[in-house]
Amino acid sequence: MLKLYFAPHTCALATHIALIDAGAAYELQRIDFATTQQRSAEYLAINPKGRVPALITDRGVLTETPAMLAFVAQSFPQKALASLHDAFAFAELQAFNSYLCSSVHIAHAHRMRGYRWASEDSSFADMQRMVPKSVGDGFALIETHMLRGPWVMGETYTIADPYLFTLAQWLEADGVDTGRIPHVIAHRARMAELPNVRRAIAEEIG
Amino acid sequence: MLKLYFAPHTCALATHIALIDAGAAYELQRIDFATTQQRSAEYLAINPKGRVPALITDRGVLTETPAMLAFVAQSFPQKALASLHDAFAFAELQAFNSYLCSSVHIAHAHRMRGYRWASEDSSFADMQRMVPKSVGDGFALIETHMLRGPWVMGETYTIADPYLFTLAQWLEADGVDTGRIPHVIAHRARMAELPNVRRAIAEEIG
Repeated sequence: MLKLYFAPHTCALATHIALIDAGAAYELQRIDFATTQQRSAEYLAINPKGRVPALITDRGVLTETPAMLAFVAQSFPQKALASLHDAFAFAELQAFNSYLCSSVHIAHAHRMRGYRWASEDSSFADMQRMVPKSVGDGFALIETHMLRGPWVMGETYTIADPYLFTLAQWLEADGVDTGRIPHVIAHRARMAELPNVRRAIAEEIG
Repeated sequence: MLKLYFAPHTCALATHIALIDAGAAYELQRIDFATTQQRSAEYLAINPKGRVPALITDRGVLTETPAMLAFVAQSFPQKALASLHDAFAFAELQAFNSYLCSSVHIAHAHRMRGYRWASEDSSFADMQRMVPKSVGDGFALIETHMLRGPWVMGETYTIADPYLFTLAQWLEADGVDTGRIPHVIAHRARMAELPNVRRAIAEEIG
């Protein structure tokens, strides 16, 4: 049985949706950020990064959303959640997810987690002012160059779709002008109607 | 023929080494950061992110080091540069590379590329003061929890090794106390002796 450590409103949602898409047997364990449970000795023994998500498997613990999503796709190949036998197509998918992880999510993190990279209140305020542009530019690149439609990789739904949907949850709070990115917004609406997505959200915040 | 767009002293070195490890036929194309060639219309048509590396394949362009490294490993399976038939082992490797990309490299980038996330000189100075700790903490986590030795994943050299080596090039300039991370430093020294690594460095800066 897979076990996903998550917190609501985090990128853990992407893997959560993918687990449902895969038909995986899983359980959820919520980590309470309000009491900084992610920094507790008990959780650090599971994931020394002190972050969510973490996925407990019978082989050990996995972290990092792009790796966890690929693991889900490779573990349930009959669900065809990624191009598993085409190195180029798989790399394109991984490049998309890596961009979400290392550019878009990072830009977003400067709104609330600036202490990772600076220490002064004036720096945090400066970072927060940049977030609408930095996150917006990331999504604009996706809009213009990456999102093929109707799904990220084109006609076929893949593990890129729940990840894009998850990060797109934060657009309004990040102050992004969503008028710049109509295809991203249409993709988000399309995803929000899927039963698996609705189920994942209900399991996290319902 | 694969073509790697690179600049010296960037993370492109990781893919460059992996291409040599794979026995791939490749050519190099240097992008001149001094003249901001990475922002030229010609290069943006290749890689709209305006960054290096980019890998031109006969199917199209790939970016994002974790995806490019996995592509090299999957395209040359006989070289066994990754666990290609074990979803968990592959995910562990991808998680390691994703951590380098989205945490360690990002921490490093705050020393010279703070303008991505802020706009004030005081913020840039604040970010720079944090780099020895933020980069150091990332490498300390690798030292304590990830680097198995002698190679990242243990007894077998993988695509994680050139990537760790590449980011470890920047430790001194980032002001990291290398006394905290003896296994990382030993790994770096071990890598530096490999003929393929020496060849890649010579091709970039020789």
